[in-house]
Amino acid sequence: MLKQEFLERKMKLVCEAMDERGIDMWITFSREGNEDPLAEDLRFDNLTWRSAAIIERDGTRTAIVGSLEAELVEGRGVYRKVIGYGREGAAPGLNEFVTKRRPKKIAVNSSRDLGEADGLSSGMEGYLKAALKEYAKRLVPAEDLAIALRARLIPEEVELLTKSIRECEKVYDELEGEIRPGRTDKQVHDAAHLLLEEKRLPPAWAPDHCPSVQVGSVPAGHLGFRGAEITKGDMVKLDFGVKYEGYCSDIQKVYYVGGGSIPEEVKRTFASARGANDAALSILKPGVPGWKVDDIARRLIVKDGFPEYKHALGHALGRSTHEIGPLLGPRWPNRYGKQGEKKVEKDMVFTIEPSVEGKAGTCNLEQDVLVTAKGCRELSKSQREIIRVG
Amino acid sequence: MLKQEFLERKMKLVCEAMDERGIDMWITFSREGNEDPLAEDLRFDNLTWRSAAIIERDGTRTAIVGSLEAELVEGRGVYRKVIGYGREGAAPGLNEFVTKRRPKKIAVNSSRDLGEADGLSSGMEGYLKAALKEYAKRLVPAEDLAIALRARLIPEEVELLTKSIRECEKVYDELEGEIRPGRTDKQVHDAAHLLLEEKRLPPAWAPDHCPSVQVGSVPAGHLGFRGAEITKGDMVKLDFGVKYEGYCSDIQKVYYVGGGSIPEEVKRTFASARGANDAALSILKPGVPGWKVDDIARRLIVKDGFPEYKHALGHALGRSTHEIGPLLGPRWPNRYGKQGEKKVEKDMVFTIEPSVEGKAGTCNLEQDVLVTAKGCRELSKSQREIIRVG
Repeated sequence: MLKQEFLERKMKLVCEAMDERGIDMWITFSREGNEDPLAEDLRFDNLTWRSAAIIERDGTRTAIVGSLEAELVEGRGVYRKVIGYGREGAAPGLNEFVTKRRPKKIAVNSSRDLGEADGLSSGMEGYLKAALKEYAKRLVPAEDLAIALRARLIPEEVELLTKSIRECEKVYDELEGEIRPGRTDKQVHDAAHLLLEEKRLPPAWAPDHCPSVQVGSVPAGHLGFRGAEITKGDMVKLDFGVKYEGYCSDIQKVYYVGGGSIPEEVKRTFASARGANDAALSILKPGVPGWKVDDIARRLIVKDGFPEYKHALGHALGRSTHEIGPLLGPRWPNRYGKQGEKKVEKDMVFTIEPSVEGKAGTCNLEQDVLVTAKGCRELSKSQREIIRVG
Repeated sequence: MLKQEFLERKMKLVCEAMDERGIDMWITFSREGNEDPLAEDLRFDNLTWRSAAIIERDGTRTAIVGSLEAELVEGRGVYRKVIGYGREGAAPGLNEFVTKRRPKKIAVNSSRDLGEADGLSSGMEGYLKAALKEYAKRLVPAEDLAIALRARLIPEEVELLTKSIRECEKVYDELEGEIRPGRTDKQVHDAAHLLLEEKRLPPAWAPDHCPSVQVGSVPAGHLGFRGAEITKGDMVKLDFGVKYEGYCSDIQKVYYVGGGSIPEEVKRTFASARGANDAALSILKPGVPGWKVDDIARRLIVKDGFPEYKHALGHALGRSTHEIGPLLGPRWPNRYGKQGEKKVEKDMVFTIEPSVEGKAGTCNLEQDVLVTAKGCRELSKSQREIIRVG
């Protein structure tokens, strides 16, 4: 959960974003059974009946909740005014509040492209529109406000995220000895889980594919393992992250098993991946649209004679591994909508992870980087050479 | 998570419900960041991109997912066919599938009244409707299918839920000594949490108000405690439940603190609550609409001279504390919609919890009961006398 002190400070970023976009009011409308994913951040979680968290452009926060939960919400100390309703339901209070304020634009959590900014459910949307009557025409997506809340990190959050990266790198270091001939991908996967248990760290995403261990040339996929044995001459790739005080890391590393000289094909694959990452880093800065960062890396890899990768170059990182934000991804509107059109902003953290599918295996040197005022800063150690193991 | 073996058997209940309602196809359409609350039950959780779980009336199950996760979903062994998509997105596959089948009614997770059956989000609904083109007109709410999946329990589930109730009752027994003069409501609340930790049981709902400890005559509310000290002559009410292997219990008990004879007002309050519960139990059986069960208890309490309670008489119980299902609640359409119109079905478990707000405090003898073929069976021990403590 977002610390309350952080929330107060991030509210300023949210209100700035409202101001820039002429949005007067942001309504998060949630209830039990299908809670809005932003409710927890907004200290609006675990409420039973239809509940509206209303943030106004000047920062005023008002809650409309079932009367039996008004005291609970007041106690959380985030909403200046808490309006409880009884058998009349949430609609009259909502209508009265909005009608008094006469907002021109009301943001709600509806988003074609971003799951975490799409917390308004179908039935709740119908109820809200009926309650707001003529004001229902003034609803706009709150995407950019949700991004301000989630993806723009304050310095304390960057510090926690950096610690998450350090913890992830420590697990990688301790795991290295497990990657050797005779071991299976499943044994490496299980060893990582043991280390997580010892360190009392949760994985950054679903444990069945965190870490994902890929041995040799196999199809890409979100899979923990396939039951393959590691042998000399294999390329091995791990994709792994941890959660540290709620902040996620997400790193990939590539290994070569066995002594002797590294085959040219492996070297060539690695070099293309490194080049693609470095090209992306060279243009990542505030104001650049996400697709351009993807594009430079994608072109390089194709120019090197490898197939185009089937995913995005990178995503925002924060309290979710796939944090909402601009996507460093291609202009594939049917798949990614307009996510790649959004511009990179200062204080966002992104993964950089173009894949190079070589004949000996896939190389992906995923690293985590912070966008600074004029460029970016590597938060994780970038892999500049293939790691020899076994 | 619903056990896979249970899921296979509950699918029959779902398909029966589809058949009865002439529904040809049920689409659960989910993605990362705002997962459909039914996705986990359907072994469709933790997927990144737009993913459709399609259940047909004959039981056939098909998944349409991002190609990088096709293998992951296949591995879960629940979907006979898994269709992966690439940069074209989910729409073409969805359209092709539906067009081939020509369904008359397609159920989706949209519900005005039931949160857990309302997992289709605003942005996903827009995407789905565009993908289905003319078939978008054939969408209907999947409420009753979700209720069949969640609220109709197979015998093994009833057994687990009964164990949850036993564990809850054990905590109540061990906690009894803590309810005595000089203790505060907070100390009782904290003592319950300690017992939960010892037993490694999670609370059935949010820990900040599970248990809820109310001392004397205070306004009702979802609150853990208010900072009151327990003194002789107080009525004390606890509302508490645990989760056991994923199944929830939900029980309230009422205590009288100190020796001496119990005041008439307390006795009268207790008797009205007991009478209301018994009246509700006397008519709870398959086929009765939920509102009637509420109504008989509500009338009795008002007839006894107490105020009408501000909530529903009871709710379904299962893997959620407030499980979706028919609501044993009043016809307050602005608050509860048509939840009270739905009919009680065999193999559902309900709480029975009308409140009697007496001058000395509120009495609520919440108990958990199973609907049988011809009536109902008490799963928790019903409280027939006020418990003396201190």
